[in-house]
Amino acid sequence: MALESLSKEETLAMRKRLIGQSCRLFYSDKPVKIVRARGQYLFDEKGKRYLDCISNVHHVGHCHPSITEAAAAQMELLNTNSRFLHDNIVIYANRLASTLPSQLRVFYFVNSGSEANDLALRLAQQYTGNEDVVVLDHAYHGHLKSLIDISPYKFRKLAGQKEWVHVAPLPDTYRGLYGEDHPDPGQAYADTVRDLIEEVHKKGRKISAFFAESFPSVGGQIILPKGYSPKVAEYVRSAGGIFVADEVQTGFGRSGSHFWAFEQQGEGFSPDIVTMGKPMGNGHPLACVATTEEIAKAFTDNGVEYFNTFGGNPVSCAIGLALLDVIEREDLRGNATRVGTHLKNLLRKLQARHQVIGDVRGVGLFVGAELVTDREKKTPATKTASLLVKRLKEEDRICVSTDGPWENVVKFKPPMCFSMDDAELVVNCIDRILTDMEQNGPELEKDNV
Amino acid sequence: MALESLSKEETLAMRKRLIGQSCRLFYSDKPVKIVRARGQYLFDEKGKRYLDCISNVHHVGHCHPSITEAAAAQMELLNTNSRFLHDNIVIYANRLASTLPSQLRVFYFVNSGSEANDLALRLAQQYTGNEDVVVLDHAYHGHLKSLIDISPYKFRKLAGQKEWVHVAPLPDTYRGLYGEDHPDPGQAYADTVRDLIEEVHKKGRKISAFFAESFPSVGGQIILPKGYSPKVAEYVRSAGGIFVADEVQTGFGRSGSHFWAFEQQGEGFSPDIVTMGKPMGNGHPLACVATTEEIAKAFTDNGVEYFNTFGGNPVSCAIGLALLDVIEREDLRGNATRVGTHLKNLLRKLQARHQVIGDVRGVGLFVGAELVTDREKKTPATKTASLLVKRLKEEDRICVSTDGPWENVVKFKPPMCFSMDDAELVVNCIDRILTDMEQNGPELEKDNV
Repeated sequence: MALESLSKEETLAMRKRLIGQSCRLFYSDKPVKIVRARGQYLFDEKGKRYLDCISNVHHVGHCHPSITEAAAAQMELLNTNSRFLHDNIVIYANRLASTLPSQLRVFYFVNSGSEANDLALRLAQQYTGNEDVVVLDHAYHGHLKSLIDISPYKFRKLAGQKEWVHVAPLPDTYRGLYGEDHPDPGQAYADTVRDLIEEVHKKGRKISAFFAESFPSVGGQIILPKGYSPKVAEYVRSAGGIFVADEVQTGFGRSGSHFWAFEQQGEGFSPDIVTMGKPMGNGHPLACVATTEEIAKAFTDNGVEYFNTFGGNPVSCAIGLALLDVIEREDLRGNATRVGTHLKNLLRKLQARHQVIGDVRGVGLFVGAELVTDREKKTPATKTASLLVKRLKEEDRICVSTDGPWENVVKFKPPMCFSMDDAELVVNCIDRILTDMEQNGPELEKDNV
Repeated sequence: MALESLSKEETLAMRKRLIGQSCRLFYSDKPVKIVRARGQYLFDEKGKRYLDCISNVHHVGHCHPSITEAAAAQMELLNTNSRFLHDNIVIYANRLASTLPSQLRVFYFVNSGSEANDLALRLAQQYTGNEDVVVLDHAYHGHLKSLIDISPYKFRKLAGQKEWVHVAPLPDTYRGLYGEDHPDPGQAYADTVRDLIEEVHKKGRKISAFFAESFPSVGGQIILPKGYSPKVAEYVRSAGGIFVADEVQTGFGRSGSHFWAFEQQGEGFSPDIVTMGKPMGNGHPLACVATTEEIAKAFTDNGVEYFNTFGGNPVSCAIGLALLDVIEREDLRGNATRVGTHLKNLLRKLQARHQVIGDVRGVGLFVGAELVTDREKKTPATKTASLLVKRLKEEDRICVSTDGPWENVVKFKPPMCFSMDDAELVVNCIDRILTDMEQNGPELEKDNV
């Protein structure tokens, strides 16, 4: 297979003509053409190598041979739908069950995190008989109509807030309502959800679910404060609702110490539904909803079939199983802990030397560095962040990107094979660029408010 | 790779325990375990061969080696998201454009027909600024929340009809409002849409879109009467709405004579949006929305990114391209015409000898035989149809299934490599079973009303 059959200019011209422009390109003023990838490295049409710090989808590394082999072997044999019995789907569900709290033992396989969250919404509404949903501010749960409705990150720019959707404050201890200096930010933020539920009840409405990413990502690489989720779950359940953990960005060991990010909230805590996606198939469209027998039963009892054409097919499940094997065999969780900790430490050292780095946070290989023009006021250094992303790409061929409501959080969620050397390289390059910006302005914004 | 690692009993037990029971099995009282497939044949764990008459997803045949090779070669190289430039997505879009009317030249790649229809709904509502949707009775457009709302087949059993959804009569010339004997059923059925739109306007509401499967499938393998779609499109457009053709079941040459089923409605006719899915990736999760520049522009102009994590990745597009090549190289459209015509003729001969076959209809390899207990009253022979499906599986290892509001339409939508011999085999077996049922009742229902 040829790596390239069109010149980059032709590709770009055809892209502009043929693909909806709402589907944006990275580095839109000077997009990159990638023709090959391996591990944490991308290669452009000229063979130039880029370090990939953001593709959490390619979880065990781009084009991992074990995944390709498993896919090809199963494609060669069978790829029917799940209306026929097949071993892969049940073996895979069983393997996933072994990573989850024992009550989460019923699985629905789908094709994307969006499909998973849409189904979670259906399950929650069917089980509780209630409609309303509480979500975190700045959350993003997917591109489908139903999910835009529960994603403040999107609905604020589009159709607006529906009457059945309620937005709780983002438990951001850096710039939110309650900071790290609060005696118990987990409890304090959980109380905001309790208060919100009370308001909902006053309107005569009822909660079906609380939806949250286990580490809010688009919200700015946020790590929920200790004790938050169990308390929220308690409030939500006593209001007749259920707790949905969206692990689409964070599952499959990214946090290193745990397989699921929600486990950071303590051993006894279990969501009622867990949705998973992006990293699950290493790029193959594979996603899933895990839930309890009770919730699944309510969905079955409505008497209506749920059929997902491609969901849980033997190829998808073979890929999913191969991915689980690679995570274990290569100790990628251990690597996430070691490299993630090193990366965070290096960034914290950098923070001591660059005023613009207001906060460094993260767990495992889910790390964010929040840039501010003023540490006291925490003014978002949006322009600096954007410039840093651009210069890392132009000068060092390193791909990072930004998140957060002001796009001022430089995010790291690389393939899990990211190395110590990679961490050192990217931090050294950031150091060099920030130093240059500080010394040679005027590029570095002084104050962008 | 082992074909089977669990006994059938273990697989079934684990399936019941681990997979949501809303995901139903075929032949639920005696499900089939399939471990291998090739072309139009499925093989169970004992090596027994089944003839597959229904897997339209496995369009060019199960496990086609050209598809597997294309997938494996691209998986080996690269499978990033569409935020990087890549040749496959633009070459594929260009190839698809060449099959469509020239105004449909902007593409959005997604992972399932459901995701495609959800996006079509968003595009229609954004472009027109209107909310309401007209759909056909008994239609099914997908499993997502937004699509259940526009699928009478589902919403009647679930949340009910939303105020923004309006149901037009199914243009079924066998048992609908206007029959084949009507001088112009296409016009007559189109007029029901015109009248419905008038009613909607009287309520002070406005139409965003008319959604219809180009051949309504779940509705009972219906072939729309000549002239229907262009007339409907005219009425819908003059009301400010757009025409969405759902080709998820029917696209990619199934009708033989044309690449898209909507083309059966005449050369000058073009929908404003075409959605595609199931057959597109031969089992790989791949789907798409094609639309006009104007509609795409309105979506871009809202300023909000549309990002689909897996949509349009290089592997999906490589598979899509390989599928287009196979359709051409193996003249599968020609085969669909030849074999489909033969199958329909054979079924019509059968109809002359079996009173229970009330109607035989179809185009290419999209064929239905509607069973009735009484040809005058057209009473649905639901039980007979169900028994026929069961006996074909038990006695002949032939997989067919039923559709239609009464599940009395035996449907054929096999892989496109279905052969003359396959058609003869299935019709002979149906003949034998129906004869046996007629002679040996009481299995054959006399009247189930």
